[in-house]
Amino acid sequence: MDMNNIASGLNTVWVLLASALVFFMEAGFAMLEAGFVRAKNSLNIIMKVFIDCCTGLLGYFLIGFGIMYGLSKFGVFGTTGFLLQDSMKNLPLLAQFGLPVEVYWMFQAAFAVAVATIVSGAVAERMKFLPYMVFSFLATAVIYPVAGHMVWNPDGLFAKMGMLDFAGSAAVHSVGGWAALAAVLVLGSRTGKYKKDGSANVMPGHSMPLAALGAFILWFGWFGFNPGSALNGLDGSIAHIVVTTNLAAAAGGLLSALFTHKRYGKVDPSMTLNGALAGLVSITAGCAYVNTISAIIIGAIAGVLVVFGVEFMDKIRADDPVGAIAVHGVCGSFGTIAVGLFASVGTAKGLFFGGGFKLLGVQLLGLLVVSAWAFLSTFGIFKLLKAVVGIKVTVDDELEGLDMSEHGMRSYAQSAIDDSLILEEMETGSDFGGSVTANMKLKTEDAH
Amino acid sequence: MDMNNIASGLNTVWVLLASALVFFMEAGFAMLEAGFVRAKNSLNIIMKVFIDCCTGLLGYFLIGFGIMYGLSKFGVFGTTGFLLQDSMKNLPLLAQFGLPVEVYWMFQAAFAVAVATIVSGAVAERMKFLPYMVFSFLATAVIYPVAGHMVWNPDGLFAKMGMLDFAGSAAVHSVGGWAALAAVLVLGSRTGKYKKDGSANVMPGHSMPLAALGAFILWFGWFGFNPGSALNGLDGSIAHIVVTTNLAAAAGGLLSALFTHKRYGKVDPSMTLNGALAGLVSITAGCAYVNTISAIIIGAIAGVLVVFGVEFMDKIRADDPVGAIAVHGVCGSFGTIAVGLFASVGTAKGLFFGGGFKLLGVQLLGLLVVSAWAFLSTFGIFKLLKAVVGIKVTVDDELEGLDMSEHGMRSYAQSAIDDSLILEEMETGSDFGGSVTANMKLKTEDAH
Amino acid sequence: MDMNNIASGLNTVWVLLASALVFFMEAGFAMLEAGFVRAKNSLNIIMKVFIDCCTGLLGYFLIGFGIMYGLSKFGVFGTTGFLLQDSMKNLPLLAQFGLPVEVYWMFQAAFAVAVATIVSGAVAERMKFLPYMVFSFLATAVIYPVAGHMVWNPDGLFAKMGMLDFAGSAAVHSVGGWAALAAVLVLGSRTGKYKKDGSANVMPGHSMPLAALGAFILWFGWFGFNPGSALNGLDGSIAHIVVTTNLAAAAGGLLSALFTHKRYGKVDPSMTLNGALAGLVSITAGCAYVNTISAIIIGAIAGVLVVFGVEFMDKIRADDPVGAIAVHGVCGSFGTIAVGLFASVGTAKGLFFGGGFKLLGVQLLGLLVVSAWAFLSTFGIFKLLKAVVGIKVTVDDELEGLDMSEHGMRSYAQSAIDDSLILEEMETGSDFGGSVTANMKLKTEDAH
Repeated sequence: MDMNNIASGLNTVWVLLASALVFFMEAGFAMLEAGFVRAKNSLNIIMKVFIDCCTGLLGYFLIGFGIMYGLSKFGVFGTTGFLLQDSMKNLPLLAQFGLPVEVYWMFQAAFAVAVATIVSGAVAERMKFLPYMVFSFLATAVIYPVAGHMVWNPDGLFAKMGMLDFAGSAAVHSVGGWAALAAVLVLGSRTGKYKKDGSANVMPGHSMPLAALGAFILWFGWFGFNPGSALNGLDGSIAHIVVTTNLAAAAGGLLSALFTHKRYGKVDPSMTLNGALAGLVSITAGCAYVNTISAIIIGAIAGVLVVFGVEFMDKIRADDPVGAIAVHGVCGSFGTIAVGLFASVGTAKGLFFGGGFKLLGVQLLGLLVVSAWAFLSTFGIFKLLKAVVGIKVTVDDELEGLDMSEHGMRSYAQSAIDDSLILEEMETGSDFGGSVTANMKLKTEDAH
Repeated sequence: MDMNNIASGLNTVWVLLASALVFFMEAGFAMLEAGFVRAKNSLNIIMKVFIDCCTGLLGYFLIGFGIMYGLSKFGVFGTTGFLLQDSMKNLPLLAQFGLPVEVYWMFQAAFAVAVATIVSGAVAERMKFLPYMVFSFLATAVIYPVAGHMVWNPDGLFAKMGMLDFAGSAAVHSVGGWAALAAVLVLGSRTGKYKKDGSANVMPGHSMPLAALGAFILWFGWFGFNPGSALNGLDGSIAHIVVTTNLAAAAGGLLSALFTHKRYGKVDPSMTLNGALAGLVSITAGCAYVNTISAIIIGAIAGVLVVFGVEFMDKIRADDPVGAIAVHGVCGSFGTIAVGLFASVGTAKGLFFGGGFKLLGVQLLGLLVVSAWAFLSTFGIFKLLKAVVGIKVTVDDELEGLDMSEHGMRSYAQSAIDDSLILEEMETGSDFGGSVTANMKLKTEDAH
Repeated sequence: MDMNNIASGLNTVWVLLASALVFFMEAGFAMLEAGFVRAKNSLNIIMKVFIDCCTGLLGYFLIGFGIMYGLSKFGVFGTTGFLLQDSMKNLPLLAQFGLPVEVYWMFQAAFAVAVATIVSGAVAERMKFLPYMVFSFLATAVIYPVAGHMVWNPDGLFAKMGMLDFAGSAAVHSVGGWAALAAVLVLGSRTGKYKKDGSANVMPGHSMPLAALGAFILWFGWFGFNPGSALNGLDGSIAHIVVTTNLAAAAGGLLSALFTHKRYGKVDPSMTLNGALAGLVSITAGCAYVNTISAIIIGAIAGVLVVFGVEFMDKIRADDPVGAIAVHGVCGSFGTIAVGLFASVGTAKGLFFGGGFKLLGVQLLGLLVVSAWAFLSTFGIFKLLKAVVGIKVTVDDELEGLDMSEHGMRSYAQSAIDDSLILEEMETGSDFGGSVTANMKLKTEDAH
């Protein structure tokens, strides 16, 4: 045992635990999205997030990781590392930090899953389950990895230009957010969301406690998302990162609360939750590069921006039940640009700290390309899925709710069996009809 | 401060945080089980899980740890280390990893609590609270420790034969699962569950969002459960373990989703959640010994196996409201055997990797003995409790729900006091009757 | 890279992850409090906890940290370190453990937020949102920091006298609890809570599963709260701390369960949850100083004490919907005193271990002063807020619920829009009136 061995062990433990925190964000997304949708679609959206974890981990294992971090072709995609069958010598930081490639994969895989999940929220309440699974696989196997390659592979197009996107305001959140916009535009809005005069009907979420729990879990997960992206615990940078991250979140939540109080007359809970998330998303690119005061300013701006973002999406009839496009697309983009303005820690300086327009230009270019890639590839996949298998449930199914039409059960079942019927059954042995759901009925019959 | 000191500190931090993750799985069990049962019994099942944490930690402190890890008698039980009053020189790995015995205890104690909790789910909706507490204490003080001793004590019967059960598919999950089967067989089924023709009625869970939250938390906890069982962060093994663990979970969830879609016509949410858990349970024995492809295969098989397991338990009228026997008993057993087939990492090889039948035989023998021990000891304790104090609530109490009969309150109370009555009360000072529950009424009277 | 560098990295990783756990306790408080209040006020209480995270982090960054850990004046408040603009050379333990000041801040900030949140529960169901925000800011910026300075700043008044309050039974929990009592006394009780004869009406919480989830999360968070307060992972003390912490929690929960069974005839769920929390609060001061048996005794006493505490608060008409004063004030005070009785690990000895009355006297004095400070400063702030802006909602708003009156929406919305109206709307394009809430209506109009 020598010092390098211990340093390697520390970094492995650190990145593994950060992976756990990032992976747990899936629980946060699930609860946030479930809370923001109507009860009749809440189980379906949770299952979409849950299946992201399954398809996403497998997709990133089979294909995604290789495309993202394999030996680079054209700075755009990788060609090695599929099924973790490569020692990834092209990633010098693994040797530098003594990180086993498998723990590095785990951390990255949790990110990949998050990208797919961002889209799940935007398409909630009307998208079919099976085509969603296909998209989820492709998002983690191809869409995100190509974007991630360009930004984070050491030989990636924008990485080589000096783009700074520490934990992924661009590579994760903008990609997820703009993919979500494309998905929504192809899919169309929920039945009854928009009136013929163009205005939007409110379809309030069915459980704000679940939504708030989700927001808390997401915030908790960001303790791994941003500091974990340092991929080592030895240079002290994670201390700075965790502080900027939390200050931006706090500023985002506070500003959303105050701004909605001014704008609507009351502190709006959905917006306040999304405001803190907007702060987190927007600081994700710059958490290691900006100082604490800049972090507060960035978070505060995001907290206001997200309100306009939500309103704007309704104006263009991009029906997003959970505000994912505004939180991740709008504020992720803002956060990426903000690095070009506020960077002051380390060597690269932003516009406001004497760095001129160079960094800002690179940020804008990288952001534009990965966002366009995410939007266009998702647009294409959704168009294809729409043509081949269909992506939207019928209006009847939508009115009944996707929990019943897609899964044959409800989030909140009343006991299917009346107690007096139970007693009667016990005495007579006769069969009786509860409102047994389709697949359960099958199960019951199967149990004969 | 020297290198050993730092290595010891790193391992201490790692195992402590892994303990926290494993302990938090109790929240996962509580939510999963609460979601899968009817509303009227949901508080009762949560309280059973909560009390497991209390009786379990104390039971494992007073008795269990000594039996499990104390100086071995006959390779079956220990005789030192009760109340942590021993330096445990018989455990060489504490010195090897520089682990303080107390943090080792904490990690093991969180496992012990989990075993009791596995049973809680299977006996939900009809078992009395106080006898459950007695069982919970005995499970963590005696049943689990004896099984654990045979498998994990360095002088344990099967440990010495070379049985491989890295984080407890046998010692934890099979033990919990088969104990649950014994408990259910003594206790009997819920009123109205089975028709006279032998077929099963569906009694759908009251909150799938809670159940899903529970599954997410359990998955999160497995980031501690499996890699934490390495008990050190220095040899890089935890990186491999976390990957096999997650791939098996993903494969289990995905296969359950696809298989139920084929079998029932829809993706079944309960089965998909249980499928991922089945993948996790089944990889728990082999996570350090199998390669990534094997992990996916093991998880995928478990994801299908759990569906048949649930159906089979209904066929033999073993009424398990949450599927605990199928997930932990069936898939835990499968996972233990799978090591004998798929082991390829490290020195011991499974049947499929040229190791012949030797390891497989040891796995089968160990599995058989600890499962039989868990089944028989639980059967005996339940028979005794049934004879002495009774274990099942009355049919009337069952129909009313255990929340009210055992705790005098409901999970989801309507405000007991009508607002107009409040105002009247304020004016007249007269008493009024809300549907104040028994113990609350007592409290109120007590407050005079 | 040398050994100090690695030690510093390990401690940084450890304290950062402990911070995450402590911060996540806010989710626990939110769910616990939401579960314990009526549905109509549940979103409001969650938002108060959420805004604590925002105002609290900012308040502690701008002012609080400097007052608490800055260069001491009179042993009562600090004068440096505001906005993290100081290297804090006055804190020798940062150099000793190699801790970056920013990670130290993060850990402390999570504690500050908790203090404000303790009060939120006690004032639930009738306090206005905006004055609560003001209090929340002041609590984290001034009230808690002054108390913390006296107890934990190396030059603090009681720190220099040898007061032992390892993780804050006094500095955090007594301060929060007695501040809550002051707040409640100024604010007054909920409408209808007390009859004219002085007895209390029961107002049962609307969701025990949420409350229990909150308790589980809080217990989980304590794995960071107490061991994290060691601020280093190298001397092995965290192993002892995590064990005493968990044994006290277990004893508290078990004793509450058994005691309420004896007293009320049934195991009371709310009390059992609060009993475990009482055990945790009471061991927080002594976790590093008492042995395991003492920890069990302390936890067990707290588990009974909390029952009397809750009953006593109702007797004096201090209306505390969640039991925060009993859990944090009463049991935090008991835990602080208990160190003076049970201390046996380390150099300082309590009364029962031959240390005489010296330590006990210091504990009592310190407890008395910080509690009086918390009570009086909160009393003053609440009186001022009451006079200037008003702190209690109107009786009408209280009857309608604060979710609607303060936020214009409900925790559990029924779909605001009838499906048949949706279809009609689709056909006719006519506007229709759902029960769209105030600020949502605004949003809708704004979207025109």
